[in-house]
Amino acid sequence: MSLKAIVYVRNPPSLEILNQLLLPHETVYESVTTVQQGYEQIKQMKVRGAPAIGIVAALSLIIDLQLKFQTFSKNPNALDSDILNMMNSPLLLGNFIRDSLDHLNQSRPTAVNLFRTSDILWEATSSGIKKDLGTKQIIESLVDMAEQMLFDDLKDNNNIGKYGVEFILRNGDKRISVITHCNTGSLATSGYGTALGIIRHLYAQGNLLHAYYTETRPYNQGSRLTSYELLHDKIPSTLICDSMVSALLASNKMDHKIAAIIVGADRVAKNGDTANKIGTYQLAIIAKYHNVMFIVAAPSTSIDLKIKNGRDITIEERNENEVVFVNGLIKQDGTEKYQIKKVRVPPQGVKVWNPSFDVTPAELITAIVTEKGVVEKEKGAKEFNLEKFLMSQN
Amino acid sequence: MSLKAIVYVRNPPSLEILNQLLLPHETVYESVTTVQQGYEQIKQMKVRGAPAIGIVAALSLIIDLQLKFQTFSKNPNALDSDILNMMNSPLLLGNFIRDSLDHLNQSRPTAVNLFRTSDILWEATSSGIKKDLGTKQIIESLVDMAEQMLFDDLKDNNNIGKYGVEFILRNGDKRISVITHCNTGSLATSGYGTALGIIRHLYAQGNLLHAYYTETRPYNQGSRLTSYELLHDKIPSTLICDSMVSALLASNKMDHKIAAIIVGADRVAKNGDTANKIGTYQLAIIAKYHNVMFIVAAPSTSIDLKIKNGRDITIEERNENEVVFVNGLIKQDGTEKYQIKKVRVPPQGVKVWNPSFDVTPAELITAIVTEKGVVEKEKGAKEFNLEKFLMSQN
Repeated sequence: MSLKAIVYVRNPPSLEILNQLLLPHETVYESVTTVQQGYEQIKQMKVRGAPAIGIVAALSLIIDLQLKFQTFSKNPNALDSDILNMMNSPLLLGNFIRDSLDHLNQSRPTAVNLFRTSDILWEATSSGIKKDLGTKQIIESLVDMAEQMLFDDLKDNNNIGKYGVEFILRNGDKRISVITHCNTGSLATSGYGTALGIIRHLYAQGNLLHAYYTETRPYNQGSRLTSYELLHDKIPSTLICDSMVSALLASNKMDHKIAAIIVGADRVAKNGDTANKIGTYQLAIIAKYHNVMFIVAAPSTSIDLKIKNGRDITIEERNENEVVFVNGLIKQDGTEKYQIKKVRVPPQGVKVWNPSFDVTPAELITAIVTEKGVVEKEKGAKEFNLEKFLMSQN
Repeated sequence: MSLKAIVYVRNPPSLEILNQLLLPHETVYESVTTVQQGYEQIKQMKVRGAPAIGIVAALSLIIDLQLKFQTFSKNPNALDSDILNMMNSPLLLGNFIRDSLDHLNQSRPTAVNLFRTSDILWEATSSGIKKDLGTKQIIESLVDMAEQMLFDDLKDNNNIGKYGVEFILRNGDKRISVITHCNTGSLATSGYGTALGIIRHLYAQGNLLHAYYTETRPYNQGSRLTSYELLHDKIPSTLICDSMVSALLASNKMDHKIAAIIVGADRVAKNGDTANKIGTYQLAIIAKYHNVMFIVAAPSTSIDLKIKNGRDITIEERNENEVVFVNGLIKQDGTEKYQIKKVRVPPQGVKVWNPSFDVTPAELITAIVTEKGVVEKEKGAKEFNLEKFLMSQN
C-alpha cells in the first residue's frame, strides 16, 4: 500500500502524523489530539509540503473539537468550565476556533495553503453561527469540511496521476523509465503525490520500468524522502546525484531509456513559467537537449493567473547552513547506537548562495498536468494559455 | 601566495605533502622521506589528482635516494650493509629503483600519469647503468628529472592560465565572473592548477570579479577542496550546489554576469569529446543554452589521439558509498572537540548509480586550453581537429 504520512480516522477520532525530521532513518508516527500539537508538528517541520501543512492544520483543529465534544457528550463533568461553557455556546466555540486558526497560521508564516484552509474553516464557522446552528452542528460541519479537503487533495492527486500517465504513454510506449526531482509524494501532500503520484500510477498500472530520483541538494529531499517513499511502496528506483542527470540521459549502458522528467511546482505563472525546487530549471534544459519530455505536475490551485510570467517571481534565498551542513545517521563512538547528526562539509569562511527555487521558462515544458486535465502549448507557441485552460474547465 | 600541496626542497632534501583527507578542516603537512611513505600517501589518497600523484611518486623516490646518499657520503657506517652495497653498485641501485617504481605503481592501479612517470625514471636509470655512470651520477640524473617534472607541470599550468585568460578576455571584457567544477587546482596538480589556474591568473591580473564553484557531488571536491584553495588565496568566491548553475546563469539579481564555465579534463579524445568529473556534461549543456563560453583546460598530455571520440570512452561506475555517506566535521557530544566523521543520508536499501565521470561532446565546448595554446573548432565544424593542433605545435 502507498505510504501514508497523515493517518486520520473519524470514529473514534484519531490523527497520527509521520515525523519527517527522523526520516528516512526512523519511522515514528506521533499522535495529535490538540490544536497546540498540530501547531508544533508544523512549526518544527515534522510535517512539510504546502498541501500537507494545510491539511494537518485543519485536521488538528477538528480532532481537538471532536475529542472535546466526545467528552462533553459522555462525561461533561470531566471538562474545565471554560470548555463546558464553549460546548454550550456557539459564540464561545467561534472564539475558540478563531483563536486556534490564528495560532495555526503562525506556525509557518509563508504557507499560503495554510491561510487558505483557515479562511475556509472560519467562513464555515461564522456562517454556522449566523444561521443559529448548535455547537454540535458547527463542529460536524467543520469535520465534514476538513475530511473533504483531505479527500479532495487525494482525489486531485489521483487524477493528476491518471492524466499524467495517459499523456506520457500516448505515443504508444507501454514500459517506460522516468526521472523525478525533490519530494512531491505522500510526504508533501495528503497522500499519493503530484509528480510522484504519476510515478505511483505508472507503477500501479505496470507501465513503470524504473524511477530515477535526484538527491535534490541542498536539503536532500530526494535522498531522504523520495527514497523512503519509493522503498516503502517497493517501486523499482535508483538514487542519483543532481549532477548525473545528463550522464543518465546520454547513457546507452543503462537497461532502459528515460521517457520523461517529471517534477512538481510551487507556483505556475499565467504563461506556464514554473517556480519549483532549485535545480528544476536545469533539468528542463537537459531534457530539451536530449529530446525527453519535461512534465510539470501540480494541482490547478498552483496556477496563479495574477503572475504574468516568471520574471514576476522573486527568487527567495535561504540560509547558507542548508548547504554547509548535511544531516544523516552516525554511529556513536564505542557503541552500536546510531544518532541523527549534522556534519559541516566546507571550511569556515566560505560564502554560499542558496536560492530555494528557480523558474523554468514555459518554452522548456512539454505539458502541465493538473487534476482537471493536461495543458499543452498551442502549436508553434512558446507559452501556455493557462487562463483559457482554467476557463474551459469551470 | 598560491597554495602549495607539495613542498619540495633540494638542499637539504625535504618533501612535505598536504594531507587532503583532513581538508578542509585541518591543514596538516606530512613529511615524506622514503618510497614507502610516498606509496602510503598515494594509496591512502592523502594526495589525489593525476598529475599530483605522478609528481609525488617521483619525488618520494628521489628524496629516499638523496637521503640515503647523504648518509653514505657523511657517515657510511650508519647504513645497513645492503644499502651500503647499493651505494657502491649501479646495478644494485638499479634493482632498488626498479623495485621502488614497481611498488609505487601499485599504489593506484589506474593512474596513467604514475606509470608514465615510472617509465621515464626507469629509462633514465637503465640508460645511466648502460653508460657506466656511478651511483652518484645516476641519483643526480633522477633528481634533475623529477625536479624538471615538477617544474614543467607548474610551467604548463602557468601557460594554461595565461592562454586561457587571453582567450576568455579576447572580446574586450576586462572584469568577469566565472563558474568552475570539481577541483583542478594546486591540490590536483604540482601547483597552480588547470581550470583553477585560469581563475588564479584572472585574479592575479585583476580581471576576476567573482569565482563560483560547485559542490561537485558526490565526493564534494568543490565544497571541500576548491573552497579551501580559493579561501587560502583570498580569491573572491561563492559555493553553489550542482543544481544551482542554471539559476545563477539566469539570475539578474547577482552583481555580475558569468562570462564562462571553466573545467578540467581527465581525457580528451581526438575530436575534442572530453571525459571529466561527473556533472561536467550538463554544465556544458547549460552553458550553451545561456550562450556562455564553455572552456576545457588541460595539459596537452591529456589529449589521447588513439581515442577517436567519446563513444570509445567507458564510463567507470564507483562505489555507492560515495553517494550514501557524506564526510564532514562534527562536534563531539558534551565536549568542545570536533572530529571528521561520515553520516549516512539516504535510508538502508536504496539503489545508487554512481558514474565517476561523463563525456562532454565537442559540439558543446567553446575551446580547449593547453600549455601549447588554445584550440577552437574550425568554422562550422562540430568537432576539434586535435591531431592537426598537436602536429602544428611539435
